[in-house]
Amino acid sequence: MLESSHQNLAMVTCTAPVNIAVVKYWGKRNEDLILPINSSLSVTLHQEQLKTTTTIACSRSFQQDRIWLNGKEEDISCPRLQSCLQEIRRLARKRRNTGDPTSDISVVSHKVHICSVNNFPTAAGLASSAAGYACLVYTLSQLFGVEGELSTVARQGSGSACRSLYGGFVQWKMGERSDGKDSIAEQVESESYWPELRVLILVVSAEQKSVGSTSGMHTSVETSQLLKYRADVVVPCRMVEMIRVIRQRDFPAFGELTMKDSNQFHATCLDTYPPIFYLNNVSHRIISLVHRYNQFYGETRVAYTFDAGPNAVIYTLQEHVPEFVQVVRHFFPSEANGSEFVRGLPVCSADLSEELKRALNMEPTPKGIHYIISTKAGPGPCVVEDPNHHLLGVDGLPKKNAVSD
Amino acid sequence: MLESSHQNLAMVTCTAPVNIAVVKYWGKRNEDLILPINSSLSVTLHQEQLKTTTTIACSRSFQQDRIWLNGKEEDISCPRLQSCLQEIRRLARKRRNTGDPTSDISVVSHKVHICSVNNFPTAAGLASSAAGYACLVYTLSQLFGVEGELSTVARQGSGSACRSLYGGFVQWKMGERSDGKDSIAEQVESESYWPELRVLILVVSAEQKSVGSTSGMHTSVETSQLLKYRADVVVPCRMVEMIRVIRQRDFPAFGELTMKDSNQFHATCLDTYPPIFYLNNVSHRIISLVHRYNQFYGETRVAYTFDAGPNAVIYTLQEHVPEFVQVVRHFFPSEANGSEFVRGLPVCSADLSEELKRALNMEPTPKGIHYIISTKAGPGPCVVEDPNHHLLGVDGLPKKNAVSD
Repeated sequence: MLESSHQNLAMVTCTAPVNIAVVKYWGKRNEDLILPINSSLSVTLHQEQLKTTTTIACSRSFQQDRIWLNGKEEDISCPRLQSCLQEIRRLARKRRNTGDPTSDISVVSHKVHICSVNNFPTAAGLASSAAGYACLVYTLSQLFGVEGELSTVARQGSGSACRSLYGGFVQWKMGERSDGKDSIAEQVESESYWPELRVLILVVSAEQKSVGSTSGMHTSVETSQLLKYRADVVVPCRMVEMIRVIRQRDFPAFGELTMKDSNQFHATCLDTYPPIFYLNNVSHRIISLVHRYNQFYGETRVAYTFDAGPNAVIYTLQEHVPEFVQVVRHFFPSEANGSEFVRGLPVCSADLSEELKRALNMEPTPKGIHYIISTKAGPGPCVVEDPNHHLLGVDGLPKKNAVSD
Repeated sequence: MLESSHQNLAMVTCTAPVNIAVVKYWGKRNEDLILPINSSLSVTLHQEQLKTTTTIACSRSFQQDRIWLNGKEEDISCPRLQSCLQEIRRLARKRRNTGDPTSDISVVSHKVHICSVNNFPTAAGLASSAAGYACLVYTLSQLFGVEGELSTVARQGSGSACRSLYGGFVQWKMGERSDGKDSIAEQVESESYWPELRVLILVVSAEQKSVGSTSGMHTSVETSQLLKYRADVVVPCRMVEMIRVIRQRDFPAFGELTMKDSNQFHATCLDTYPPIFYLNNVSHRIISLVHRYNQFYGETRVAYTFDAGPNAVIYTLQEHVPEFVQVVRHFFPSEANGSEFVRGLPVCSADLSEELKRALNMEPTPKGIHYIISTKAGPGPCVVEDPNHHLLGVDGLPKKNAVSD
C-alpha cells in the first residue's frame, strides 16, 4: 500500500481472474442480493492471459467516489457498485469497532478513486464483470484491511464474480438462507491439482448483440418450466458428479458433463419466452466439430462450453492441444497469419492426417473464428506490490497509460 | 372402385393431408408399435395446397406387392410399410370371418400395387411421411372394405400419420396400454370450426441435412432429462389448454402456446446428447421478426412453429395475412417475382408503414426464404371417384404422368 502522507493517500493495486463455468449459473431467486436458483462450478483461468487490474486510492482530499473503467469514467451510482462499496465499508467499520489494532481507522470514511482495466479486448465478448467485481472487492478489502469471507460481497456485484475470488476449481454453493449469508464460493481444488488441463477460447464473430445475461436470466426464471426442473432436480446431481470427476481428473467424464451442462443451459434459453439464442451457426459448427473429433478417437478428448454469447471455450488436455488447434485452423481458416491467430500459451504445430480430415467431413467456414486464446487454470486474485503498476497517479487520477496494459 | 373383370383388377385412389403439430410429438415409449411418450395436437392442412395421392390396385395376376413413390419404385420390405399392410389385411380377414356380407372375399389374399405422389416437392423439406402413411392406410381400407379405427394402423407407419386421418384440429392421445390399442387420433374440431385461421409455410433453405426425426427422437429419449419432464409434466397441461383455446377460437392464447411448445421441443433437441439443431440463422430471424411484429401491435397476431427442420409454419388470422406476408417479402427479399414467391391461397397486397419497418429493426436477409405456401385448415382423407385420376393403369403399372400432378 502506497501511503503518500502529504496527501494522506492510500493506494492498492490488485488483479483478478476470469472464470468459465462448467455447471452453469442461470437464474436468480433474489435479484437484489443476487442469490441463484442453483449452485454452479467453474474453472478460474490464468491471469497471464486474462485478468482485470484495479487500483483503488482513498484520500481525505477526495470529494467523491469515482470510477474509471478501461480509461473512461463511469457512473459510480450504479446500484451493484454501490452494494459492493457499502458492504465492504460496513465490514471495515465492524472490524474497527471490534477493536482490531491493525485496522486503519481513518481510511474507511474517505472517498475512493477506482481505476480498472482488462488485459483483453471487450470486443472478445468475454464477460468481464466477474473478474471486474472480484477485483473491485478484493482490492477494497486490501485497502480497508478487511479479511474473511468476501464472496458474499463480490456476489452482490455480479453473481459469478464470487467464483473469481479463488483459483483452480471453484463452486458457488447456492445456499438456503434468505439473507444470502450461505450463498458463497469455495475452492474445490487448486489450480495445481490438474496441471494437464488446458483451455482454448475460440473468439467467434457475433452478428448481432445478444440479450444481456441479467435480463435474459430474469425472463428465463419467469417463463421457462424446464429451467425450474433443471435447477431443482438436474443441477444438484451434476454438482456432486462434477466435483467427483474433477477430483478423479477423469477428462472424458468431465468433458461430457461440461458439454451436457452447456447444452442444457442453452436449451433453457430456448425454452424462455420469447426465446433467447446465444449460439449462432459458427457455434453450431464448433459443436459438430468437437463431437466428430471425439467420435473419430472413440473418446472425449475435447469439450466445449458456451456462456451468454457465441464464443466457444474448449477444455482439453495438454497432449491434444496441438492437433485440435490445427483442426480449428483447418476448418475455420483465418486471414490472420499463424502467430496472431493463436494467442497466449504457445501451441506446437501439428499435422492433420487425411483420415482425420475426411472423418470430420465439414466444409471450412472462413473467418468464422477471429482468434484463439490458449490458457489454463490459474490462481485467484493477487496484490501487485510494484508501485510502478498502480493505475492511479499520486494525484489520485488515472495515469495516461491506464487504458490497458 | 374400378373392377376390370378380365384382369380381376380392383383399384382405388385416395388423397390425404399434411398436418402441422401445435403440441409436438417427440419421443417413443415403444419403437415397434410407435407409441409416444406424450399426447400431441395438430392442424390438418388443406389438400388443395398439400396432399399425397395414392392409388392401390390388387389383382390375382400380381406376383408380389410393389410400391412406387413419386415415380420411383421403392423397397416394399420396409418394416413400417409391412406393418401397415399386414395390419390392414388382418382387419380385412377378421371382417370377412365375422361374416360381413359386403366384404370382398377374394381381394385380401391378392398382392397389391401401390403408387403414391405428393403435390409438393420433397425439396420443400416438409415431412411427407404423415400424409403418405395416412393415405396408404386409408386407401388400403377402401380397397379391402375395412371400416372403423384406422389411426392405430397409420400410427405404425409413422406416428404423426394417425393425425392426418382427420380434418381440422386433431389430437393424438398417447394412451396407456402396452399394446397401443388406446393410442389413437381423434378430431377435436372440424376444419370449418375456425374459418379465419390461416397457415403460411415459409420454405427456408437448409445448408445441411438435419438428423432424421426417427433417430433424433430416439437419442432424445435416451439422453435428455428435460424431455422426460416435458412429456410427463408439461405436455399433459398443454393439451388441456390447447383444446380449450382452440374451442374458444382465442388466437393470442393459441399462438403463444404454439410458439412456446415449438421452442420447448427444440430446447429438448438441444438438451439431447450429442445436441440436435433443427433451427438455423434464418429460423432464428423469423422467430425474432414474429416477436417484434407482435410486440409492435401489443398482441399475438402471428405465431411460428418449427418441426424437425428449418422451415417455419406460421399460424395467423386471415385479416393479418396480407401485411405479414409483405413483412416477410421486405425482410427476406427473394429473386423470384411476386407471383412465384407466394403460392397457394391468393394473398392481397399490402403496404408497410415506415413506423412498422422501423419497429421491426432488422437487416434484410436476401434469399433466406425460398417461397411461401399460403393455406388453411382442411378435411381428412378423401376417395377420388374419377377413374381418370388413378395413378396406375389397367395393366397395374404406374401411368407415365404419375410422377406428380
